Amino acid sequence: MQLDLIQRLSIPAETKVVLCVMDGLGGLPGPRSRTELEEARTDTLDHLAEEGVLGQTLPVGYGITPGSGPGHMALFGYDPLAFDIGRGVLEATGIDFALEPNDLAARGNLCTVDGEGRITDRRAGRVATAITAEIAERLGAIALPGVEVFVRPVREHRFVLVLRGEGLSPALTETDPQREGVPTLPCAATAPEGEATARIVNEFIAQARALLSDRDTANAITLRGWAKRPVLPQMPTLWKLRAAAVTVYPMYRGLARLVGMDSLPGGDDIHSQFATVREHWHDYDFFFVHFKGTDAAGEDGDFRRKSAAIAEFDAALPELLALRPNVLVVTGDHSTPATMAAHSWHPVPLLLWGDHVRIDGSHAFSEVECARGGMGTFPAREVLPIAFAHAGRLAKYGA
Amino acid sequence: MQLDLIQRLSIPAETKVVLCVMDGLGGLPGPRSRTELEEARTDTLDHLAEEGVLGQTLPVGYGITPGSGPGHMALFGYDPLAFDIGRGVLEATGIDFALEPNDLAARGNLCTVDGEGRITDRRAGRVATAITAEIAERLGAIALPGVEVFVRPVREHRFVLVLRGEGLSPALTETDPQREGVPTLPCAATAPEGEATARIVNEFIAQARALLSDRDTANAITLRGWAKRPVLPQMPTLWKLRAAAVTVYPMYRGLARLVGMDSLPGGDDIHSQFATVREHWHDYDFFFVHFKGTDAAGEDGDFRRKSAAIAEFDAALPELLALRPNVLVVTGDHSTPATMAAHSWHPVPLLLWGDHVRIDGSHAFSEVECARGGMGTFPAREVLPIAFAHAGRLAKYGA
Repeated sequence: MQLDLIQRLSIPAETKVVLCVMDGLGGLPGPRSRTELEEARTDTLDHLAEEGVLGQTLPVGYGITPGSGPGHMALFGYDPLAFDIGRGVLEATGIDFALEPNDLAARGNLCTVDGEGRITDRRAGRVATAITAEIAERLGAIALPGVEVFVRPVREHRFVLVLRGEGLSPALTETDPQREGVPTLPCAATAPEGEATARIVNEFIAQARALLSDRDTANAITLRGWAKRPVLPQMPTLWKLRAAAVTVYPMYRGLARLVGMDSLPGGDDIHSQFATVREHWHDYDFFFVHFKGTDAAGEDGDFRRKSAAIAEFDAALPELLALRPNVLVVTGDHSTPATMAAHSWHPVPLLLWGDHVRIDGSHAFSEVECARGGMGTFPAREVLPIAFAHAGRLAKYGA
Repeated sequence: MQLDLIQRLSIPAETKVVLCVMDGLGGLPGPRSRTELEEARTDTLDHLAEEGVLGQTLPVGYGITPGSGPGHMALFGYDPLAFDIGRGVLEATGIDFALEPNDLAARGNLCTVDGEGRITDRRAGRVATAITAEIAERLGAIALPGVEVFVRPVREHRFVLVLRGEGLSPALTETDPQREGVPTLPCAATAPEGEATARIVNEFIAQARALLSDRDTANAITLRGWAKRPVLPQMPTLWKLRAAAVTVYPMYRGLARLVGMDSLPGGDDIHSQFATVREHWHDYDFFFVHFKGTDAAGEDGDFRRKSAAIAEFDAALPELLALRPNVLVVTGDHSTPATMAAHSWHPVPLLLWGDHVRIDGSHAFSEVECARGGMGTFPAREVLPIAFAHAGRLAKYGA
C-alpha cells in the first residue's frame, strides 16, 4: 500500500499487534528432504497455522536476495527499492551510533599496504577488534576544518567513519579497489555536490595514512558505502500508534528506530525479549520482536542449529501468546538456507494469526504449506497493512 | 492490464461473456468453522468449479477494505486508486440521477440546529424520507446566479445536491463538523479554482437556512463528498463490444453507466435478472449481473441469510447457463463477512468457467479452494482482461 494511503486510512484502536521476525527463516531441503523449519519441532506454530492463515512474502522482488536492511524495511511497510538504507548508515546503526541529519557515514576497513602503497591484504589479516579500537581512537582525533570526525570500531578490521558538518554529500566514490596489488583509490565526487566533501575525505585519508605509518600491518584504510540517514515517514504518524522494537542485536534496533519505533531492552534471548514485551504491553500498540538465532545458524551452514533455533523460538512462543495479542505475525526478513550458508532470494514463510483471520486449512508452519497458503505470495511490504487491517486499524477506502 | 494496452489489443468477436457479481461474496468462518459460501448448498457453482478454474481477487490492495464504488471499478477493469468515484457522484448515481459533465454533486444531510445555530442532531432524528422529499423540493427552488440547482431525497435525512453550471469545481471543504454542539462549517475552497464555487455554495446554504427557519428540526443542512462525474474510458471503446448491466439497485446501474454500459431493467430478483439477460442475449456481448442479497445479509450480520442468498443465486444459475455463455465469471466486489457485519479487506473468491479454461482440480466453490485455485491471488482489475482473453477478444502482444 502506498504510504500516503496508509496515512489517510489508518485509525487508532485498542488492539495489539506483534510482528515476530525470525531472521533468515526460509530454508531449503536438507539431508532428509525437509527444510530447517519442517525438521524443527514446532507444536505451537503448527497449532497457530491451523487457527491462522499462511502465505509467503517477497522482501524485494522475484529472484532478489535481500540484505538485512531491505528485508526489514519491507517488513516495516516501506518499498526497499524506494527507501535505500546505505551501507554506512547500516553499519553505524549496527553499533548503536545515533546518526544526526547532517552526518555522513561510511563503512571503513583497515587494510595493509606495502612500502609503495600497494594493498597486500584488504582485511589487514582480520586484525583483532581491540587493535581496531585503538586505531579508531587515534583516527578519531584527526582534525578537519568545519567537520567533526567520529571513528568507531565494529569487529575485526571493520570500523565506521562518521563526518558531521553542514553540506556533506554522499555523492562519492568508494576507495576500496576490491583487489590487492594496487593502491587504495582516492575519493572522487560522483556529482558536483560531492566535490567539497571528496576533498575533505581525501584530507582525512592522507592524515590517516600519516598517523598509521608507524605500523607494518593495518596501516591504511578503505572507505565505502557513503550514506546519510534516510528521511523515512515515521510509523507513529503513518499508523497513528505507538511502536516498540525488542531486539538483541543493535542493527535491528537501529533499523526500527529509523522508522520511528522506540527501542526496548531485549536482553540476551527470546525469553527475555518476550518478558520485555509483557512489561511494556500497555505502553505500545505494536511490537517488533527480532529473533537472530535462525539467521546466524543459517549463515554458518549449520542446518541442525538453525532447526534448533526455530524450535527454541517455538517453545518460547506461549509466553507471548499468554498476553493475548489481537494479531500475531511470524515471518522472516529473508531466507537463509543452511545448505547455502547465505541469504537467498527464496520467498519467506509467513503466518498470520488472530482476529478476523480467514483460515485456509493449513496444518503446519512450513515452506510447502506457506507456498499453498490462503494469502498467496505477496510483497513483504504488504505484511503490516494486512496485519493492521485484521487489528481494525484501517478504515474503508471509498464509499 | 493498462487501459491503453486493452484498447490496442482488444478485438471484436461473436462470443458472450457474463460477469456475475455477488455483492460482498467473501466471508469468514462462522459457527461451524465454515464460511457462508462453504455452508451454502451450491451444486451448480461446485460443478462449475470442477469444470473451471478458481482464484481470489484483491479489489484495491492488500489490507484495504473497499467501498462499493472502488470494488466495482476494479471489476470493470479500472484501477480504483487512479479512478476515484467521489461520494457525491456515488449518491447521485445511487438514485438514478443522470449526472452531466458540468454537474457538481454533494451528499447532503439534514440536521437540526438550535437558536444559536449549533448542531443538536447531525441526522435530524433520521427524519422520515417523505419529509426529506418535501424539504428537497423546497430547496430545489433556490435560485442561484448562473447555476441550476437540483435537490433529491435519498433516504431518511440524506439527500443529493447537484449544481449544474460552467466552471464549478469540487475543490471544496465539507460543511459537516462531524460533531454536535458546534455550528455547521462554511464551505471553503481547497484550491484557487474552488473559490467562486465556494461562494455559490455558501449562498445556497444561507438561502436553505432561511427557507428552513420555520422548522424546529431538520432545519439546516450539511454538505460533503463534493465530486464531478469522473471521465472514464468507456467499455465499448476499450473493448470494442456492447455491454449491458442488469441490476436491481440503482447505484450499481449508475456505476455501470459511468463506464459506458447500457442499463437494462433488472426486475426484483435474480430470476428476472437472468430473464432480462435472455431477452437481450443477442443485443450485447457482455453482461454485468449484480446480485445484492449476499451483501445485504452480510452487512446485517446474518450468517444464515447470507448463506441462503448464495444458495438462491446458485439455484437460479442454470437459467443463465442455458444461454450457453462462452465465458462466465462469478465473484464479488469485496468481502462482507457476516461475523463482521461490514465490508472487509479479505480477498474475494472468483470462479472462471467457459472456453479454453485450464482446470485446476478444484471440487467446490469456497474460500479455501479459491485461495488454492489455479489463478492465484491477483488484482480484481485483471478479471475482465482474463475473461475477455478466454472469449477470444484479446489479440497477441508482439510478434
